[in-house]
Amino acid sequence: MTGKFSIIMYSGTADKFIPLGVLAQAAAAMEMKVEVFVTGFALLGFTKQKQDIPFPEEFKGMAPKVMEGMKKNKVPSWYEMLKQAKEMGAHVYACSMMAGVMGLTKNDLDPVVDDIVGAATFLQHAEGGQVIFI
Amino acid sequence: MTGKFSIIMYSGTADKFIPLGVLAQAAAAMEMKVEVFVTGFALLGFTKQKQDIPFPEEFKGMAPKVMEGMKKNKVPSWYEMLKQAKEMGAHVYACSMMAGVMGLTKNDLDPVVDDIVGAATFLQHAEGGQVIFI
Amino acid sequence: MTGKFSIIMYSGTADKFIPLGVLAQAAAAMEMKVEVFVTGFALLGFTKQKQDIPFPEEFKGMAPKVMEGMKKNKVPSWYEMLKQAKEMGAHVYACSMMAGVMGLTKNDLDPVVDDIVGAATFLQHAEGGQVIFI
Repeated sequence: MTGKFSIIMYSGTADKFIPLGVLAQAAAAMEMKVEVFVTGFALLGFTKQKQDIPFPEEFKGMAPKVMEGMKKNKVPSWYEMLKQAKEMGAHVYACSMMAGVMGLTKNDLDPVVDDIVGAATFLQHAEGGQVIFI
Repeated sequence: MTGKFSIIMYSGTADKFIPLGVLAQAAAAMEMKVEVFVTGFALLGFTKQKQDIPFPEEFKGMAPKVMEGMKKNKVPSWYEMLKQAKEMGAHVYACSMMAGVMGLTKNDLDPVVDDIVGAATFLQHAEGGQVIFI
Repeated sequence: MTGKFSIIMYSGTADKFIPLGVLAQAAAAMEMKVEVFVTGFALLGFTKQKQDIPFPEEFKGMAPKVMEGMKKNKVPSWYEMLKQAKEMGAHVYACSMMAGVMGLTKNDLDPVVDDIVGAATFLQHAEGGQVIFI
């Protein structure tokens, strides 16, 4: 499959990292050009220093069941899936504006992040393709 | 109107089911090829056994006003709108990975769900069209 | 850059207005045809009468840091960015169904809103372009 699949990863609750990993991996495996633009609270999931990523307030009670189900079904972590996507050509960028607001530099971010770029650069890369906002 | 409109329905709070119904129905009525891929906590809204679908924590206080407004304005339920979309050709799929994680089989799901498929199949169907992530 | 960039602005927590402003402004500056369709709880951010826009429950503790970071980095408010987008040709529409449900008329809405339209009209304008759901 040709085409681009671009993901704006904004929401920072733990559950939302699962579709990030799944969709990035699936689209890259289908030979789509995948780009992830990490911004908002989702940046907290991409810092070298581990941070507590909260579960959504409304579904806190479901967290243990979901975690157990993922283990039992041997679902890889979102981070593993994103690394697989990268091995197949995906790129991960952090939003320059939001990194600045949170006082984060390239050095604070996990090596899975390729670079820090602005929203305009991301939109240019995404031109003509599919874009989703998580 | 030609074209495809694909919806990844992930968020599981009650409010998010309204745009699912409205957009699926409107796009199908415009003769777009509509596909819904239900995953994440949104799966809880598609089980045969009725579950409590929570209102978002931040807007709990607004729930009664919204429900009353929908009744007064005779807005159909999201389920009715989705069924109308299906009568006009839309399809609804549940995510195989997330169904597995939650221990749900086809038999546990509401008949509005056509089938259980993987993310790769969904992306293939969505190729070249518009995709939104709710 | 040619192409259309359409934003369905649904989520109503304060943080989500930032990507609305940034993406609308960036896309308009790149000469894309930008349309914003305001619906759901996001309508509360577009009323003339100022309302309390809540921060997401899970990241309440981050609010002061984010606000301070935005001030320090001289990031314009989402409203300023959206007005800039409009000066470059963007349009902002409110969802007729949701306005009805909330008992809001054109007169209750901030002048940044060009008109009240239905979902079908929005989808027609968005035809063939990129659409994101915030």
